[in-house]
Amino acid sequence: MELSKELFADYNCLTTAEGLLAAGMENINVTYDMYFREIPDKGGFAVMAGLEQLVDRLKNLSFDEKCIDSFRKQGFSEKFIEYFENFDFKCDVYAMPEGTPIFPNEPIVKVCGPAIQAQLIETLVLNTINHQTLIATKANRVFRSAMGRKVIESGARRAHGLSAAVDGARAAYIGGVSGTTFYPASQKHNIPVATVMGHGWVQLFDSEIEAFEVYLEEHGEDGMLLVDTYDTLDSGVKNAIQAFNEVLSPKGLRPAGIVIDSGDMTYLSKRARRMLDEAGFPDCDIYASNSLDEVLIKDMLNQGAKIDGFLVGEKLITSASAPVLDGVYKLCETEKDGVKLPAIMVSNNVNKITTPCSKRVWRLFDMETGKAVADVLTTADESVADEKTYSLFDPDFTWKRKTVDNFVAREMLVPVFKKGECIYESPSLEDIRIYCNEQVSSLWEEVVRFENPHRYYVDFSGKLWGIKQSLIEKIMRNSDAGDNQYV
Amino acid sequence: MELSKELFADYNCLTTAEGLLAAGMENINVTYDMYFREIPDKGGFAVMAGLEQLVDRLKNLSFDEKCIDSFRKQGFSEKFIEYFENFDFKCDVYAMPEGTPIFPNEPIVKVCGPAIQAQLIETLVLNTINHQTLIATKANRVFRSAMGRKVIESGARRAHGLSAAVDGARAAYIGGVSGTTFYPASQKHNIPVATVMGHGWVQLFDSEIEAFEVYLEEHGEDGMLLVDTYDTLDSGVKNAIQAFNEVLSPKGLRPAGIVIDSGDMTYLSKRARRMLDEAGFPDCDIYASNSLDEVLIKDMLNQGAKIDGFLVGEKLITSASAPVLDGVYKLCETEKDGVKLPAIMVSNNVNKITTPCSKRVWRLFDMETGKAVADVLTTADESVADEKTYSLFDPDFTWKRKTVDNFVAREMLVPVFKKGECIYESPSLEDIRIYCNEQVSSLWEEVVRFENPHRYYVDFSGKLWGIKQSLIEKIMRNSDAGDNQYV
Repeated sequence: MELSKELFADYNCLTTAEGLLAAGMENINVTYDMYFREIPDKGGFAVMAGLEQLVDRLKNLSFDEKCIDSFRKQGFSEKFIEYFENFDFKCDVYAMPEGTPIFPNEPIVKVCGPAIQAQLIETLVLNTINHQTLIATKANRVFRSAMGRKVIESGARRAHGLSAAVDGARAAYIGGVSGTTFYPASQKHNIPVATVMGHGWVQLFDSEIEAFEVYLEEHGEDGMLLVDTYDTLDSGVKNAIQAFNEVLSPKGLRPAGIVIDSGDMTYLSKRARRMLDEAGFPDCDIYASNSLDEVLIKDMLNQGAKIDGFLVGEKLITSASAPVLDGVYKLCETEKDGVKLPAIMVSNNVNKITTPCSKRVWRLFDMETGKAVADVLTTADESVADEKTYSLFDPDFTWKRKTVDNFVAREMLVPVFKKGECIYESPSLEDIRIYCNEQVSSLWEEVVRFENPHRYYVDFSGKLWGIKQSLIEKIMRNSDAGDNQYV
Repeated sequence: MELSKELFADYNCLTTAEGLLAAGMENINVTYDMYFREIPDKGGFAVMAGLEQLVDRLKNLSFDEKCIDSFRKQGFSEKFIEYFENFDFKCDVYAMPEGTPIFPNEPIVKVCGPAIQAQLIETLVLNTINHQTLIATKANRVFRSAMGRKVIESGARRAHGLSAAVDGARAAYIGGVSGTTFYPASQKHNIPVATVMGHGWVQLFDSEIEAFEVYLEEHGEDGMLLVDTYDTLDSGVKNAIQAFNEVLSPKGLRPAGIVIDSGDMTYLSKRARRMLDEAGFPDCDIYASNSLDEVLIKDMLNQGAKIDGFLVGEKLITSASAPVLDGVYKLCETEKDGVKLPAIMVSNNVNKITTPCSKRVWRLFDMETGKAVADVLTTADESVADEKTYSLFDPDFTWKRKTVDNFVAREMLVPVFKKGECIYESPSLEDIRIYCNEQVSSLWEEVVRFENPHRYYVDFSGKLWGIKQSLIEKIMRNSDAGDNQYV
């Protein structure tokens, strides 16, 4: 299952490693930031996830004989091969804890260390965090759309491979779903497992009623019946009621629920609810499935659908309406002869311009409401003292200013590796899920809402802003020369 | 890397297995079809992929101590545990070869065997084939949009986990890309690996020109220079030309190319082309990257962009504009007391109604043009003889009829497992890629085109159509009774 003995890197990370070794630059100290630029689905925030798997992969970062052989065949230099035979991870890694609401253009992972190593793990960091953060973010949207009803993740059949299904179910659980239908995900990550009858079960019997009765004999109060194999109301729900009466009632058991997997589920759920109530089963839950997502769930509930829970499949496990988190990993500082040099990339696309310096991220919480007011990025040698008032200003629209007082400032990037040693113990998945829910509650509802959410403030300290501006201006003046590092 | 020692099944496949054992129904002979309903991106066809991985996973289908333990903890019956301790795969499996153009509502995988086993592998079959077929289909679109220019897969950083990146690169290669930037994918699947300079390389040096010169010293004619770190034309291309002149020309070497990763790439490529030509480097290729897909590539080429190759990332590896292939796995036949009974599911959504019977799929090729005319589904005991004329008719619009003659009929589902033994040897990835290209060429261009492609005919034999109609009519008459299997 774990993929740690291969080098999960884009080839350019290897050629860069070889180049740095050849140029004797491998041990320049550098800092890289991972951050993303756009929130999926035009939401107000994303949900950090994947750190536990990233930690596992970095802990196991070593290169076995097979990997070294592949380097030889690829024609890498002896120096390069020697380096990887004796590989010893030496980086410092900081990251946002899983479950944290995160925002564009702030570091969510920060890696400091020898240039050759910090750049080597780019693909590993991005792939792991981009994937799970994407799914946790989507799951949180779906979870919120269900307004307290249960959501079960059930997308394994259409996930992008088996690992995407296993780790995606984990991320979905962080985001708020109640369980998964995918057995290996439940086993690997200790997620509650849920079961639903398949159409195949019904079809294997001579009649639907027989299929239901045998199932209930077997599963009793846990048996959810799938009622849409032939005709939801005229056959499925009728037969379900008959089976409840014949199998469960004599034993004094109550039915778990029925599942509707096709048709107009708002209409069908209302009709089914009435039939079940009239038959004396008002406690029988009605579940819906069939290519659901947060948009459909909100719409069904707005129309008064009588649905108690949702099975959400491919549109969650692939985040189908926004299947990419656009996380990037960018150099922001180098150190030469003991002097720290902020690094920048100035693109023709202004949204691709990077923010220089090794940074810290502070979240300011209002003392009275407990709500998060803004995040502030500072250089690594600054801090935000919460005894004082703090003057926020927008790095893009610098005339927007706001003074906050009566707040607590929390530092958001926590140390994970120190000189290559893991110093972080991941909380349990259950605790991460609770933390996620708490932290989302700390956001103003204007940031959380689905349509046109407020942009949460991610501001810069005056010092950081000044460094960035002067670097950009200098490059604009000198672009012919191509010089690119300045203090 | 391989994930075979865990049971990759949705929980309902396990509870169904337990239920079948309890009811003594585990060895009923059944047939399941995998098929999909909608072609991603409104295309005219999909490209089959993932069979080699499915074969590997089925070959290795066994349940180790850890897995059996998990069943015990989950509270499964002793009978169930015993069954899995002594698991012996006994199914017949048929499938379309990888690289085959495939169409909605025709079986692309067919599994026949004991009910308990055939239903158990549902999630494994669907996940494996849905994922790779999705990516191969997208890659073929991107490949065709580039009109013979090179396409390099470079999406690992934003794939849905590491396996999605590794196996997705494989599927992309089948679909027509020339290589991948992801090193482990190139190693595992023997795909040509490509490298591109990262922005980090440029930033590590005091100036862009120094970064380029050191890189070219190292990589010579293989070194592609990334020219957009500071200013594409005024800095990047100028410095590239200078570096070619200073490093390559004295050695008599020619430049490999430059890469533009941001900005208006159509405009920039034209300007860069002129600069390179005037500097004496008309043979220096220009590559473009930056969230490309087939729509952008077509548009750039229509505008006369001077681009020789494309690096295509997240939009290919996630099939971002259509990130789900909606493959399903449905029971179509059972056998009781030696009698084969066609099985159907009749949904309130008409597109979810299944087609009964164990089936064969025939592709009819016109003898004169070599073009594929139509696919025909027949029952397992029928065949399509190509000496005669054949009368096609549309299963949905039955007044649409067409007589074909002078054709060869090829049976499309090939045997893969026979009573649980693998009898299939997968072609090399290279051969699959060539086969894909040939087979796509056998489609009429009206089916292949991007906008409003013709619907390729997937027709039924008269016998198959008759069985399906009579089953639907009988269920519609009897839906109160919920009876559901008929001959």
